[in-house]
Amino acid sequence: DPGDAALIEDPGYEGARSAWRAAGARVVPLRVDDDGLDIARLPAGARPRLAYVTPAHQFPTGAVLSLPRRLALLDWARRADALIVEDDYDGEFHFDGRPLAPLAALDREARVLYLGTFSKVMFPALRLGYLVVPAPLARLFADAKALADGGTSALEQQALAQFIAGGSFERHLRRARQRHGARRAALLAAITRHLGDRVRVSGANAGLHILLHLPRLPAADGDALVRRAAQRQVGVYSAAPYYARPPRHTVLVLGYGGLEPDEIDTGIAILATVLSAER
Amino acid sequence: DPGDAALIEDPGYEGARSAWRAAGARVVPLRVDDDGLDIARLPAGARPRLAYVTPAHQFPTGAVLSLPRRLALLDWARRADALIVEDDYDGEFHFDGRPLAPLAALDREARVLYLGTFSKVMFPALRLGYLVVPAPLARLFADAKALADGGTSALEQQALAQFIAGGSFERHLRRARQRHGARRAALLAAITRHLGDRVRVSGANAGLHILLHLPRLPAADGDALVRRAAQRQVGVYSAAPYYARPPRHTVLVLGYGGLEPDEIDTGIAILATVLSAER
Repeated sequence: DPGDAALIEDPGYEGARSAWRAAGARVVPLRVDDDGLDIARLPAGARPRLAYVTPAHQFPTGAVLSLPRRLALLDWARRADALIVEDDYDGEFHFDGRPLAPLAALDREARVLYLGTFSKVMFPALRLGYLVVPAPLARLFADAKALADGGTSALEQQALAQFIAGGSFERHLRRARQRHGARRAALLAAITRHLGDRVRVSGANAGLHILLHLPRLPAADGDALVRRAAQRQVGVYSAAPYYARPPRHTVLVLGYGGLEPDEIDTGIAILATVLSAER
Repeated sequence: DPGDAALIEDPGYEGARSAWRAAGARVVPLRVDDDGLDIARLPAGARPRLAYVTPAHQFPTGAVLSLPRRLALLDWARRADALIVEDDYDGEFHFDGRPLAPLAALDREARVLYLGTFSKVMFPALRLGYLVVPAPLARLFADAKALADGGTSALEQQALAQFIAGGSFERHLRRARQRHGARRAALLAAITRHLGDRVRVSGANAGLHILLHLPRLPAADGDALVRRAAQRQVGVYSAAPYYARPPRHTVLVLGYGGLEPDEIDTGIAILATVLSAER
């Protein structure tokens, strides 16, 4: 309902924050750490009716929500009579160990709405995603979708369905995982080689981006670094806009999904040069 | 704003009514006659901030909004500080005389939002439409669209753009107009031949459907007629759901966009037989 509160991750996906706000909800940001969102830290006064989380690969920190926290979050939803929106936006790309069960699979109370997208695993122009809702909510969401846009184009849906049914999607996914795994390895190696102990990496275990923490570079100097790197054709982004309360040091988002290993190494070398000139 | 009133046509397009309601607006239905919506009949107490109209081919009556009423509606919008949403959903198909200038072309006050669709002139699965908004509103609508769905698929848009740029759309439209004109002529001839003075037709001057009024058949008997026709593979629909206050006699919607002339003649002959059995 309008005026209700929606719990979001801090830092988090600004698209979700904007969507809740546009729907009239107050947003309550809750800080995430290396294990993701800790529902036990929810301020006593906050009464969110909904929590938006990215458990598989927290955006943008890359934290994987630990199993105890998953169970605690589900338990909270039961007690608070709240819904959980689980956004598994790049769950297809996990690199270390087995992925944890999604909240939706652990849910016994029909409280989890699980959503995914083909924007990452295929390409964004496709505009296809999916939302798995508890059975009692299916009719409501189908009606809302019909009202909002009369349904998504059948052309892409049928083309993708054939792509999946014929086995091409599975092959594409396997190749993409290998390719992205090699890019990720190149990125981590380049960071060690060129930046060494000037930086700290987080969120490398899943997804197609990492966070690069520069503990010695004040947040205020981050934008200049991003600008100078861009002048040398290296695209890195400040993570500050994703935070409700940004950290004091510079944090960068490095996306590697569209780059080849040698481009990645060159890019990190340039970033290291720019960083040295900066200080 | 939520709670504001939106003026809609009665009878009218239920998709629009549902959309305004879902947005939190109160809807104020205003009866249309053979010249469309008459803003002079707006009840004194009603203060709509927005009017949703289908001037080119009122849905579902097919009335064309007369020029004096167009000017009166624009004048009302100026005085009431209201916006007008002009839905020209099948403006490509006009059969009698020259079409009138759309409200958007007569608008001197940046109050008209003009929308169209490729669902009728191409096919509904395409899911492409357009909204022409006054320049001061463009940024707002672009932001809302980005927030709602991140933009419509570029694939269909590019394919359609090529289809238009290469001249194929124009050729398709010319052929479609001829084809639909022949179907419309077949429908009107079949109604005269098989139903004669038992019925009255309205809304035949534009669009891909007409309204068939059955003044001697009480509204309560209309559903049975629709059902019996359907049993004999003739698809006609009651217009009653489109009315806030349905008429006392039966009114049917006959769509002819997807039928060949001989199918149309056969269908109307069957409808006449069913109607005779009904009474």
